[in-house]
Amino acid sequence: MSEQKLPTRAEDFNEWYNQLVLRAELADYAPVRGCMIVRPYGWALWENIQAALDRRFKATGHLNAAFPLLIPKSFLEREASHVEGFSPELAVVTIGGNKELEEPLVVRPTSETVIGHAYARWIQSYRDLPVLINQWCSVVRWELRTKLFLRTLEFFWQEGHTAHATFEEAEAETRQMLDVYTDFAVNEAALPVIPGIKSESERFAGADRTYSIEAMMGDGKALQAGTSHNLGQNFARAFDIQFLDRDGERKYCWTTSWGMSTRIVGAIIMVHGDDQGLVLPPRLAPIQVVVVPIHKNEDERALVMESATGLYQEMVKVGIRVKLDTREGLTPGFKFNDWEMRGVPLRIEIGPKDVEKGVVVLARRDRPGKEGKSVVGREGAIVTIASMLEDIQLAMLAKARAFRDARLHDVSDYNAFKEAIETGFARVWWDGDAALERQIKEETRATLRCIPLDQPDQVGTCFMTGRPTRTQAIFARAY
Amino acid sequence: MSEQKLPTRAEDFNEWYNQLVLRAELADYAPVRGCMIVRPYGWALWENIQAALDRRFKATGHLNAAFPLLIPKSFLEREASHVEGFSPELAVVTIGGNKELEEPLVVRPTSETVIGHAYARWIQSYRDLPVLINQWCSVVRWELRTKLFLRTLEFFWQEGHTAHATFEEAEAETRQMLDVYTDFAVNEAALPVIPGIKSESERFAGADRTYSIEAMMGDGKALQAGTSHNLGQNFARAFDIQFLDRDGERKYCWTTSWGMSTRIVGAIIMVHGDDQGLVLPPRLAPIQVVVVPIHKNEDERALVMESATGLYQEMVKVGIRVKLDTREGLTPGFKFNDWEMRGVPLRIEIGPKDVEKGVVVLARRDRPGKEGKSVVGREGAIVTIASMLEDIQLAMLAKARAFRDARLHDVSDYNAFKEAIETGFARVWWDGDAALERQIKEETRATLRCIPLDQPDQVGTCFMTGRPTRTQAIFARAY
Ligand SMILES: [Zn+2]
Ligand SMILES: [Zn+2]
Repeated sequence: MSEQKLPTRAEDFNEWYNQLVLRAELADYAPVRGCMIVRPYGWALWENIQAALDRRFKATGHLNAAFPLLIPKSFLEREASHVEGFSPELAVVTIGGNKELEEPLVVRPTSETVIGHAYARWIQSYRDLPVLINQWCSVVRWELRTKLFLRTLEFFWQEGHTAHATFEEAEAETRQMLDVYTDFAVNEAALPVIPGIKSESERFAGADRTYSIEAMMGDGKALQAGTSHNLGQNFARAFDIQFLDRDGERKYCWTTSWGMSTRIVGAIIMVHGDDQGLVLPPRLAPIQVVVVPIHKNEDERALVMESATGLYQEMVKVGIRVKLDTREGLTPGFKFNDWEMRGVPLRIEIGPKDVEKGVVVLARRDRPGKEGKSVVGREGAIVTIASMLEDIQLAMLAKARAFRDARLHDVSDYNAFKEAIETGFARVWWDGDAALERQIKEETRATLRCIPLDQPDQVGTCFMTGRPTRTQAIFARAY
Repeated sequence: MSEQKLPTRAEDFNEWYNQLVLRAELADYAPVRGCMIVRPYGWALWENIQAALDRRFKATGHLNAAFPLLIPKSFLEREASHVEGFSPELAVVTIGGNKELEEPLVVRPTSETVIGHAYARWIQSYRDLPVLINQWCSVVRWELRTKLFLRTLEFFWQEGHTAHATFEEAEAETRQMLDVYTDFAVNEAALPVIPGIKSESERFAGADRTYSIEAMMGDGKALQAGTSHNLGQNFARAFDIQFLDRDGERKYCWTTSWGMSTRIVGAIIMVHGDDQGLVLPPRLAPIQVVVVPIHKNEDERALVMESATGLYQEMVKVGIRVKLDTREGLTPGFKFNDWEMRGVPLRIEIGPKDVEKGVVVLARRDRPGKEGKSVVGREGAIVTIASMLEDIQLAMLAKARAFRDARLHDVSDYNAFKEAIETGFARVWWDGDAALERQIKEETRATLRCIPLDQPDQVGTCFMTGRPTRTQAIFARAY
C-alpha cells in the first residue's frame, strides 16, 4: 500500500472506487480485458458473504450442487427471449483437444438451460417436487464496459434453481428468496435495500416476473444487489420439465431462479466507504479488530506486547476475527492508515502509557478522528469490544439509511424528477409503459429500478401521463 | 432409486462403479460429452472434503483467492514443458461477444501461468515472501476416455500456488502439503495412502519434482489421490517472478503448486464401497446417521415417532449429521436398501417393540447383515452412537489397510511382477530409467506409481537391471 491519499469521493467517485479496490487489495486486473483477480482480502470478504447466504439457503431447505461450465450453444436457443438476452454476451469454445468442435459450446452466462435439461430427467412425479438447488460458481458475460466487482467478464455468484408443482409455490419461492436477500443485505451487509418488482423492460431474459433489491450508492446512483425470478413455465416448456401430478395428468413444472454476485462487494464499498478507504460491516469483515502495539524500545515492546497478546488471545477465544499487527519497521501512523484503507471496523492501540494506566484505546472505523476514539479499562475490555462491534454494525446501517432517505425524493413532475436523479432516487406515481420508460431513459439516463413491494394504500397521479394510479415506482441512474 | 441390485464388484468392477455413482445420486452425466453434474448428495460430500482440507490449508498459513477462468493462449507457451503437457487437452474460446477474438483464450487446465503473471506484479522484495495462496475452482482438460469423478472434461479441485525466497523453503512447502494430503486421506477419508515421489516420466508438466499420494482401489489398481509439485524456478523464469533479496540482489522466486480434486470422491467409492453400494467414512459423510421409524398403524406411529424424534433431536444437539426418514409409502426394507446404497455409516431402527423394551437397534454400514447389528438402551444411546461413529471411521481405515497390505506384493523378478500387478501393487528394488519404465508399461500396462518416502535402509537388487540399489519403487496399473 502506498502512502498516497485516495481522491475524495466528492472529487471523483469513480476514481476513488477504482483506487480503493486496488489499494485495499480486494481485487486486481487479470491479463484478459475485463477479467478480475479477487485477492485474498477480497476473497475472505466474499467467503463471509457466502457463509451468511449459504446458511440462509440451507435453512430454507436448499441443497448445493454443481452443474457444468460448458453448455451446448443450441440449448440457449430453445427459450426465445433467453437467447435474445444473452447471445450478444457469450464466450464460445470452438476448439477442444486441438479439434474444431462439431457443436460450439458456450461458457455458462447463467444456468437455466443446462439445469432445466437435468431437471427434465430427474423429475418424474409430484413426489419429486419441489426441487430446491443452489450452486456457487462463476459465469462469463462478454461485457464491453467493465469495472472491478461491478461488471466483469467473469464474475462469481450463486444461482438458485427450483422447480414446483404450481404457480403459487413458485411465486412463494421467488418472494421467499427476495426476502432472504433483503435480510442478508440489511442485517449482514448493513445495506438498506428496497425490495421491489421490475418492470417488463427490465426483466430477466426468460422470466415472467423479476424481483430485485435496489441499493443507493454513495454517489446517489442505484445498484441492483440481487434478483429473484419467477420463470413461469417458460423453461419447463423449452426443456420439457414435466411431472405426473396427483390427478394422474402430466403437467409442466413452474420454475424459479435467483442470484446474488460479487457485485455486492461493490455495493458494500460504495455505500460504506469514505475518503480514507473501505469501511466494512463487522458481521462480514475478514478482520473485525486489529491490535496495533506501539513502542519505541525493547522494554516498551515487552510491556506492550504482553498486554496486546493477552487481549488478542481473549478475542480469539470468543470468536472475534482479530489481527495483531506486529510488523516491524512501520510507524503506527502508517499502520493506522493501512487498516483504515482496508476498512477494519475497530482498531485497538496499546502503548506503554496505556499499559501503565491499565487501559486500551479503541478507534471505530465508522467514526473517523477523535469522535470515534475511546479509552477503556484493560480488564473487561473484551465486553466493550464485542458490544462496540454490534454497535458499529447497527450504526452503519442507520447511517446508510439516513443517507438514502435524504436522497429518496418524492417528485410529481418531470423537472423535479430530473433534479432528483442528479443526487439520488426519484419516487413517483407511475402509470407509464415500456415506451415511456425508454423515453425517460434516453432523456435522463434514469431507469425504472423497481416498483417497491411496500406501496402506500392510496391513489396518485402519474407524473408523466397524468393518469390516476395506485402504483409508485423508483427511478434512478444505475450501475 | 430403483430396487434393482448393483452388479457385484467381482462380476464387473467398472460397471459396479458407474451404476453406484448414478444410483447413489452422487453425480450424473451432463449434455456435453465427458462433463459431469455433481448432484446434491455428491456435492455435500465434496463440501465436507473441502472443509476438512481448507481447515488444514488455513492452519498452515494459506489464504484463498480467485484467479480468472480465461487465460491467454500465449501464456501457456511461455513454459516449454508445460505447454507440451497441456496443449493436447485445451478447450479454446475463440469468440467473445459475437466477435472473433484477436488472441484465443484457453479455459484454465491449471493456473500456474496466470497466477505466475500476478505474482510477478505483487512480489517486489523478500518482505513479500512467502506468498501462500489457494483457490477452489473447476478446470477443463479435454480428455478422451472419461469416467464420472475419475476423469471428466471439467473437474473440481483446489490448487495451491506458493512463492518462496529459497529452494529449501519451496521444498519444505511441497513436502508439507504432501503431509497435509496424507493426513487428510488417512484421518478423514480413511484411505491408507502411500506418499512418495514420482519418477521423471510421471512428473507434472513444468515441475522439478512431483510428489503424490497413491491409493489402492478395491480392484487392486492405483489411483493418484493428490499431488504436490516443486516447480523450481521454471515458472518464475517464464513469468519473471523476481524479488529483491536481503543482500540487495534481484533473484527469481522458487514456486510450488499442489492439488486435490473430485477424483478423491472416486477413490472413496472404490476403496470403501461394497456390493450393496457406497460406504462413507463418518467424518466426511453428509448424513452420518439415519433413523428409520417402523410402524404399521397410527398408534404404533405415534409411539415410535416420539422416541425417534427425541433421539433425532439429541443427535442434532451434539452436532451429529442425522436424517429422520419419515417418507410415507415406502417399506422399511426399501429404506434400508436406499440408505445402504448411499453409504450412510449408521442406521438406527426403532419399532414399537423396541419402544416397549426401551431399546433401539443400531446397524453399522461397514459390517453388513447381523454382524453389524446391535441393540442398545434408548437412554444413553447417544453416547454409544457417537463412539460407534468413531469406531466405524477407524475400522474402515483398518480394513482398507489390511486389504492394501495383502495386495502389496514384494517381488524380485519380472514374472512375479506381472502376477502381482494382476491383483495389486508390486513393490520392487529399482534402478531403471525412463526407457525401462516405458518398456514395462507397454508390456504390462503398469506404471511407476511412486518411490515411497518411507524406504528401508538397505541395499537390494533392481528386479530388471540386476544392479544394486537403495531404492524401492511401487508399480501398478492405475486409474
Ligand atoms: Zn450484461
Ligand atoms: Zn489428462
